[in-house]
Amino acid sequence: MKIESVDFFYLSMPEVLDIGDGSQDALLVRVRAGGYEGWGECEASPLTSIASYVCPMSHSACKPLKYSVEGKSIDDVSDIRRISTLVHENSLDLLQADHTLSGIDIALWDLLGKKLNEPVYHLLGYKRAFPKLPYASQLFGDTPEETYQKAKQTNAAGYKAVKFGWGPFGKNGIEKDIAHLKAAREGMGNDAFLMIDAGTVWGEAVTAAQERLAALREVNTFWFEEPFINGALSPYKELSNSNPKVPLAGGEGCNNFVQAQAMIDYSGVSYIQIDAGRIGGITTAKRVADLATSRNVTYVNHTFTSHLALSASLQSYAGIEKDFISEYPVELKSLAQEIGKEKILPDSDGYIHLPDKPGLGIEVDKEACRNYLVDVEIKVKGKALYYMPEL
Amino acid sequence: MKIESVDFFYLSMPEVLDIGDGSQDALLVRVRAGGYEGWGECEASPLTSIASYVCPMSHSACKPLKYSVEGKSIDDVSDIRRISTLVHENSLDLLQADHTLSGIDIALWDLLGKKLNEPVYHLLGYKRAFPKLPYASQLFGDTPEETYQKAKQTNAAGYKAVKFGWGPFGKNGIEKDIAHLKAAREGMGNDAFLMIDAGTVWGEAVTAAQERLAALREVNTFWFEEPFINGALSPYKELSNSNPKVPLAGGEGCNNFVQAQAMIDYSGVSYIQIDAGRIGGITTAKRVADLATSRNVTYVNHTFTSHLALSASLQSYAGIEKDFISEYPVELKSLAQEIGKEKILPDSDGYIHLPDKPGLGIEVDKEACRNYLVDVEIKVKGKALYYMPEL
Repeated sequence: MKIESVDFFYLSMPEVLDIGDGSQDALLVRVRAGGYEGWGECEASPLTSIASYVCPMSHSACKPLKYSVEGKSIDDVSDIRRISTLVHENSLDLLQADHTLSGIDIALWDLLGKKLNEPVYHLLGYKRAFPKLPYASQLFGDTPEETYQKAKQTNAAGYKAVKFGWGPFGKNGIEKDIAHLKAAREGMGNDAFLMIDAGTVWGEAVTAAQERLAALREVNTFWFEEPFINGALSPYKELSNSNPKVPLAGGEGCNNFVQAQAMIDYSGVSYIQIDAGRIGGITTAKRVADLATSRNVTYVNHTFTSHLALSASLQSYAGIEKDFISEYPVELKSLAQEIGKEKILPDSDGYIHLPDKPGLGIEVDKEACRNYLVDVEIKVKGKALYYMPEL
Repeated sequence: MKIESVDFFYLSMPEVLDIGDGSQDALLVRVRAGGYEGWGECEASPLTSIASYVCPMSHSACKPLKYSVEGKSIDDVSDIRRISTLVHENSLDLLQADHTLSGIDIALWDLLGKKLNEPVYHLLGYKRAFPKLPYASQLFGDTPEETYQKAKQTNAAGYKAVKFGWGPFGKNGIEKDIAHLKAAREGMGNDAFLMIDAGTVWGEAVTAAQERLAALREVNTFWFEEPFINGALSPYKELSNSNPKVPLAGGEGCNNFVQAQAMIDYSGVSYIQIDAGRIGGITTAKRVADLATSRNVTYVNHTFTSHLALSASLQSYAGIEKDFISEYPVELKSLAQEIGKEKILPDSDGYIHLPDKPGLGIEVDKEACRNYLVDVEIKVKGKALYYMPEL
């Protein structure tokens, strides 16, 4: 069958707050072929990704994404891989391309799973999807007291793992940071996994990160995430060799396979965190999962938005039993909550399971999504290259 | 003084051909402050970069670029660095950001140079700009015979160095490639520097590139450029350790400092090629030039568009005498030729010199540019976020 249409829907909360919460808007992608419909989601800046899909060609290696997608065959997984390769060749110099490809690639896997009546993880070669232990991923409180209350509530809700990140961490001096760390541990109790996410706050500056290691060790931090910007291999490596030892995590900012490969090979991270909505979709995420396995690095999904995106990000390492940790956003804005009709919820033991349904197993709630639609029009030389399609 | 306005002008040839020629369109940036005007240029996909400048915020680390630029102070070089840092923080998850920042950063250096009555290389700390030997950068011919003719003409025009790239190379089998290499050397003569650019044709596949090494060595190739995609550290490293030895060049696809750092530290390239229009502007390019010097890697500009972009890309290593090679596009479309009123032309010894004038030393020819303007309108929720400004 041929790809008949690729449609982008920009959804947003009525008000987007200046906080590190990625669930405030979304770019949904719908792909249609042979009577089937697949859905995907691109991370971050919907307008920019839409523009990259429809923009005029700049030269042979800077074509709009639509050039590599529309009208192409989609009958088996090799077709998805071929489209991914095509986009990389034809949109090599289009920086936004990998974010846009991500949603398209996810939608293609969903579509093919529906056509072949298989969950995506089967198509990826996994016999089964192992349960994952979700960590309740959330922002630090504005104050240590608020962080403590959030941790206590998370513990009371039954989560065995938690992550606090962004917010004030790293911005108000080391004493405040230590107070947040202690509050998080105290609120969750000593048995819980506690992850800390610095949200790239120190850029490339190793010393500031090193100064927090003792306190991170003291509260038994399971991992210390993104002290530096993505790809800052030398700072990561230096920190990973510092004492006391705290395992490092990073990689959510990777936009392609070789960036993730560099993080795995040279940064010293113990955990590689991949967002299928950024790295180029499930196709590329699976390549990274395979590489991580061969390098004894633990693969973890990065997800801070809808359960459609969550399902997509879990597929690529669903069958790797030893990589049992997963990011699970617990502070989703209503938009991100309502995108999918189904939810991926922790069972009585606190584990989450991928839907045992064709494709991603998450049906998009079109009616709910309509409430969040953002009307966009892009005209070039008086011609509309994009206007909001019918949902 | 405060930044009063930042305006984007999308220019394009009437017809954009499906060839590896980056001079077919351009995104000009004009920044105004305190009665001064600075100009810059962003590489590739003007529409996408415009969208990234005006897009609605997705979250705290995914803001439009305008958030970090408009209304900000611009009095000395520390202000430019501060704006660059702000963009990296505020637009961390906006993938296109670095291409857009590039043009803004270049325009800010131009503006500040005009205000302080200094060429940009002085503001960067260089006492003088050393002459550079331009290599005539062009596409391979469609046939070896055509490559031969192009090489002969380039030699007759007085160039001492030439680069052939893209086009058919790597696509039609090794015999054809060898024929092109021999044709290039024959046409240029034995004394010329001959650079070969594979245009990332082999992706991450080392063997295909290795198979060309003997022929590359035989024609005394000065460097072998971009056999692989940017950031493919392992394939580059493996090829750099292969025999026979041919020096490798790469890096034009780097979008930030740490990507260039990774290429310098881990890929085994002898030449790091930086495009100021992609890496985040002159600010980041200068950081890379300093790092390259400390690592004994040779810095080279990447430029395949206007002389405004050429001046911008030369500034960052103008004062490094030993790095004397420069990319010099010789097949510019009329659009790219006409953007600047001044040209950077080889002297009687075949060397090029940066203009000894304030800023970039290239005055934009507004009248000529008007002939290439592309009318763009971006509306979100019925409100025009971008429409073509007055040139």
